[in-house]
Amino acid sequence: MSNSIGNLFKLSTFGESHGPAIGGVIDGCPAGIDLDLSYVQNELDRRKPGQSKITTQRKEPDQVEFLSGIFEGKTTGTSIGFQIKNTNQKSKDYTHNVDVYRPSHADYTYDQKYGVRDHRGGGRSSARETANWIVGGAVAKQLIKDIKITAFTSSVGEIFIDKPYQELDFSTIEQNIVRCADPVIAEKMIEHISEIKKQGDTVGGTITCVIQNIPVGLGEPIFNKLHAALGQAMLSINAVKGFEYGSGFCGAKMKGSDHNDLFNQDGTTKTNLSGGIQGGISNGMDIYFRVAFKPVATLIQKQDTIDSKGNNVEMQGRGRHDPCVVPRAVPIIEALAAMVMADFYLLARARS
Amino acid sequence: MSNSIGNLFKLSTFGESHGPAIGGVIDGCPAGIDLDLSYVQNELDRRKPGQSKITTQRKEPDQVEFLSGIFEGKTTGTSIGFQIKNTNQKSKDYTHNVDVYRPSHADYTYDQKYGVRDHRGGGRSSARETANWIVGGAVAKQLIKDIKITAFTSSVGEIFIDKPYQELDFSTIEQNIVRCADPVIAEKMIEHISEIKKQGDTVGGTITCVIQNIPVGLGEPIFNKLHAALGQAMLSINAVKGFEYGSGFCGAKMKGSDHNDLFNQDGTTKTNLSGGIQGGISNGMDIYFRVAFKPVATLIQKQDTIDSKGNNVEMQGRGRHDPCVVPRAVPIIEALAAMVMADFYLLARARS
Amino acid sequence: MSNSIGNLFKLSTFGESHGPAIGGVIDGCPAGIDLDLSYVQNELDRRKPGQSKITTQRKEPDQVEFLSGIFEGKTTGTSIGFQIKNTNQKSKDYTHNVDVYRPSHADYTYDQKYGVRDHRGGGRSSARETANWIVGGAVAKQLIKDIKITAFTSSVGEIFIDKPYQELDFSTIEQNIVRCADPVIAEKMIEHISEIKKQGDTVGGTITCVIQNIPVGLGEPIFNKLHAALGQAMLSINAVKGFEYGSGFCGAKMKGSDHNDLFNQDGTTKTNLSGGIQGGISNGMDIYFRVAFKPVATLIQKQDTIDSKGNNVEMQGRGRHDPCVVPRAVPIIEALAAMVMADFYLLARARS
Amino acid sequence: MSNSIGNLFKLSTFGESHGPAIGGVIDGCPAGIDLDLSYVQNELDRRKPGQSKITTQRKEPDQVEFLSGIFEGKTTGTSIGFQIKNTNQKSKDYTHNVDVYRPSHADYTYDQKYGVRDHRGGGRSSARETANWIVGGAVAKQLIKDIKITAFTSSVGEIFIDKPYQELDFSTIEQNIVRCADPVIAEKMIEHISEIKKQGDTVGGTITCVIQNIPVGLGEPIFNKLHAALGQAMLSINAVKGFEYGSGFCGAKMKGSDHNDLFNQDGTTKTNLSGGIQGGISNGMDIYFRVAFKPVATLIQKQDTIDSKGNNVEMQGRGRHDPCVVPRAVPIIEALAAMVMADFYLLARARS
Repeated sequence: MSNSIGNLFKLSTFGESHGPAIGGVIDGCPAGIDLDLSYVQNELDRRKPGQSKITTQRKEPDQVEFLSGIFEGKTTGTSIGFQIKNTNQKSKDYTHNVDVYRPSHADYTYDQKYGVRDHRGGGRSSARETANWIVGGAVAKQLIKDIKITAFTSSVGEIFIDKPYQELDFSTIEQNIVRCADPVIAEKMIEHISEIKKQGDTVGGTITCVIQNIPVGLGEPIFNKLHAALGQAMLSINAVKGFEYGSGFCGAKMKGSDHNDLFNQDGTTKTNLSGGIQGGISNGMDIYFRVAFKPVATLIQKQDTIDSKGNNVEMQGRGRHDPCVVPRAVPIIEALAAMVMADFYLLARARS
Repeated sequence: MSNSIGNLFKLSTFGESHGPAIGGVIDGCPAGIDLDLSYVQNELDRRKPGQSKITTQRKEPDQVEFLSGIFEGKTTGTSIGFQIKNTNQKSKDYTHNVDVYRPSHADYTYDQKYGVRDHRGGGRSSARETANWIVGGAVAKQLIKDIKITAFTSSVGEIFIDKPYQELDFSTIEQNIVRCADPVIAEKMIEHISEIKKQGDTVGGTITCVIQNIPVGLGEPIFNKLHAALGQAMLSINAVKGFEYGSGFCGAKMKGSDHNDLFNQDGTTKTNLSGGIQGGISNGMDIYFRVAFKPVATLIQKQDTIDSKGNNVEMQGRGRHDPCVVPRAVPIIEALAAMVMADFYLLARARS
Repeated sequence: MSNSIGNLFKLSTFGESHGPAIGGVIDGCPAGIDLDLSYVQNELDRRKPGQSKITTQRKEPDQVEFLSGIFEGKTTGTSIGFQIKNTNQKSKDYTHNVDVYRPSHADYTYDQKYGVRDHRGGGRSSARETANWIVGGAVAKQLIKDIKITAFTSSVGEIFIDKPYQELDFSTIEQNIVRCADPVIAEKMIEHISEIKKQGDTVGGTITCVIQNIPVGLGEPIFNKLHAALGQAMLSINAVKGFEYGSGFCGAKMKGSDHNDLFNQDGTTKTNLSGGIQGGISNGMDIYFRVAFKPVATLIQKQDTIDSKGNNVEMQGRGRHDPCVVPRAVPIIEALAAMVMADFYLLARARS
Repeated sequence: MSNSIGNLFKLSTFGESHGPAIGGVIDGCPAGIDLDLSYVQNELDRRKPGQSKITTQRKEPDQVEFLSGIFEGKTTGTSIGFQIKNTNQKSKDYTHNVDVYRPSHADYTYDQKYGVRDHRGGGRSSARETANWIVGGAVAKQLIKDIKITAFTSSVGEIFIDKPYQELDFSTIEQNIVRCADPVIAEKMIEHISEIKKQGDTVGGTITCVIQNIPVGLGEPIFNKLHAALGQAMLSINAVKGFEYGSGFCGAKMKGSDHNDLFNQDGTTKTNLSGGIQGGISNGMDIYFRVAFKPVATLIQKQDTIDSKGNNVEMQGRGRHDPCVVPRAVPIIEALAAMVMADFYLLARARS
């Protein structure tokens, strides 16, 4: 169960960063969807390493191959298998952690839990897995074409966008390498990440995601609330430490008389502190949420740590790593959001 | 699927606030656990309405009846059915919303999704459901006795505890009616809630939960990460708008060199910004997280709203409501955390 | 997971035959279904003990109480909780098996698995549980009104109906106490069961179920085939030893040129050895299957057995038991079939 | 959900017979299992086409490639991805059914359900999928090494083994091409299949499976009974029409006094009509069951059928097909049984 997401639109995945391939199975995509495979590849390209000076310099083509479930350009309703070959692994970049636990990585917990561990590139705990999610998300997006999902970098370290998302021009997001929806702030973020990178250090950040043009009625009461499923998905991303939607943590400081969203006559609301969801069910207003990423744990600096025998050792990351995970995480968040929305879209049809 | 939580330790629930009863089925509790039923009742009493001047004045005994799965004081390994009768419903308190949508409640979304709605007390969307969770959690706590779960109010509106949890005395939590772990701050919170209540208004807040004495190795990679399951559970609680664990949203502002938790020789870490989880798997350090609650939507004030035909109407809450949900939510968070931990505890046994 | 059936239409149950009540939660029934509660009760009456001279003489009213999910006669889309109180338990009928393992009962396996056991009336392994299924099935039948599900006794011991079901008059089924679709054979069956009962013995039998007026396209490839789900459901019934559909075990003796169902121009088939399903998916023809029941294990005769210490002991059933389970199992099979069909009906809507 | 089997040991699959590859993801195999990959390949070779004169003459190497989850010969506890490339598809063998519905195949139901269909080799409905199951089963067998699973052909058409399995020498099974556990009967079966093949016809048969050396206590009450899970798995195999375990359909003719299995003092039973399972839970005795296969639907004879417009057409199978599916289905049944047993083995550990 731990390698699957979704109920009716379900992705099951496999793969380590240094094995022959990663990939997965998409189960439940309805038949007859025109699948634009080049769109899927474009989405992968948005995530792939080596795309700019502020991301890892690792180069991998991340070419997806579809193996089943598509016939003459359309989904057939059967499961869609796919794989992405690993082509540019430098396993010897990882000889340093064969027997050493990198701080704030999953080396120690995997070793303790499983007693055996593929140390190369973090093995299954590598964020390489997220390429699989991009594929699932790019298929999901084509299933729920009318729903518009847009994510962007809203903060890097202490630098943040200080406007509500309604005042931003989303068309600018892909025009800068940090994927910030404000061109001026984007420059500051890029400068900051470049500086951090020079220090061999890393920095955290947040991403905001806005989902628009949503039918009323997606989501289910109690334990399958729409925002809880979104939260669960986002908290599955490597390095994520927090999730909030609508008014979020700020809402916890407010009074009800300020927080309540009053209705217009057509059922829309004058404000949207609720974030588009009431009782776990979409109300047709925009859904928006924010995700917090800790700084990448791999530093190009010396750090004290231990080996598997408990000896003190000193280590330094030698792989090719991101100084800030946020720019490449933008399409990942969109992909997960798309899979969650597709799942609830199908579920709502079942009950209708 | 929407009324169940957990995989191996699974609770399925039913019930509206104004029907004959609420209740549920606990599936997967191992056999041979000595169940202290009075402990379950005590946990329910921590949640029940009418317990103090800052909670709703509704009085309900919330007496749980176990119907199966227990024989001579022990669990039998079969499913545990239970119910809590509804005894003090004042359905006529809800004549005002038969056909009116309360702002920032689930009335509108339920009506749009289902076309039919039990308006009384919010029906299935009522927080009364959380009494069921208390029962599930109180059974779970007895299954994982060694794991210690403690939640407390960490902020109400703008008033917050400004110390790390390690400096707090958890034994003070149940000594004040707001369930704050700092007696001085508790007084301020109580005063603030009392003031808000007088205004017929409501206020939000946050709860912090600390889980201690956890075996290393609970949690699973990718889509069943321990913190993602905790997040999903917490986001299921009515009025919750955010979840963060470890460094949370603050961590997003930090540099990696400040954020990494360096190891001691025994595998523990010198700091714990990770919040006790690496790669989705517990590392044996304390797990801690924080949950944000919006202010209660029901105000004892006049509000503009609409009815189901889209007419503008004015309404005022007449039920007996909480000015701040946080004090009563403390045991709810513990209960959900206990069910999640019990689920992963059983899962880890399966794989061991 | 072991106490739930279904994915989108899901029943979770609890209850021992000698506890305060049995019951369950129906999750996933769409909103707006007019529920005829007296119909549910009638279905329960078809299963209840004491209804004729060839069933157990135990008398229980088996009165179902609905606790949630229904408002003003319609389903609300939320979970439907229900219970059936146990009113006529004679626990002292079961003092004989406190520490003794009844042959071919589940006493031994429950004791070995769980280490603790509610011996009274078989505890959770009692067929009393099937009353819960009747409730789930009676709700499901009202969801899929157009699909007609008819089960009947097709054999008792060596006595069997020797006509294809198409030649039977289903309206005769409820006119005889053995629920056989052939009045002449029914008399022989009744006579045989009466004879067996006098001997303190029991006898097995088979039930045939026919599902008619099914839309094309229910069922899913690979591991969620319609007939596999029906088989899994039927094999969940106490005492069932076999399941076959369409040509079944006879089909295994045939040649392809005799077995293939040739098409009419409208897509129907001239024969129906397939049993209405191809590749796991309904083809619109009648689905029919047959279920084998072993003879009831409780004899009103002396039997040698052992106690939990491995001592040889002699025992004799003293409870009030059925000499043949088949007549009362007819509505149980219909109920399970209805829940399976409802589940696939909703699933097909999701994908459509 | 339709492409997955199992809860804790879970296989999810993809693939059409004429796409680039088939494959799957095994989720939940514990870490530290020494995986003999040549054993997996040997199991595949038992199923592969072209192995004898009584199977299809199609030749495919069916070479499995493992893509993840294994490190230095051991499972790592993470998901195991694998693929089997399709190398010998002759898609032009299937031009005859582009728009024609083969009788008693899934062409019609797939077309009606999905509106789009990969006609080549039956697409997803092809028994080629079962190669994936062999892989899953061969991994499962290595997880539950002590449990011995043996299947064999017990009948072909009207020819059957007339001895109880205890009198058979299982070591003879792989010594004849029909995989019958009785060498004399085997010869008759082979002769019969050869004759049928000459006629361009096909014939059905049954397979018996015996599971030995099983711990007491596998299986769960109510809806996750061990035999119901086995039945569900077996009914997922293409062409299967029936499943019975223990006394099966014969048991339905018996009296309780003949059917009950009396205990020995050590908890074993003198007879085993129960088939090793009581109340859904293994009792430590052999589990045995029988599976009925209809004759293969593809005939090398002219047949009348229709095309998708409802026109009458005549067709004749031109692919390379099995005259009897049973010999190659023997390892498939073992593989499914192994996955089911592995799943319950892990589940029992969770609850222990």
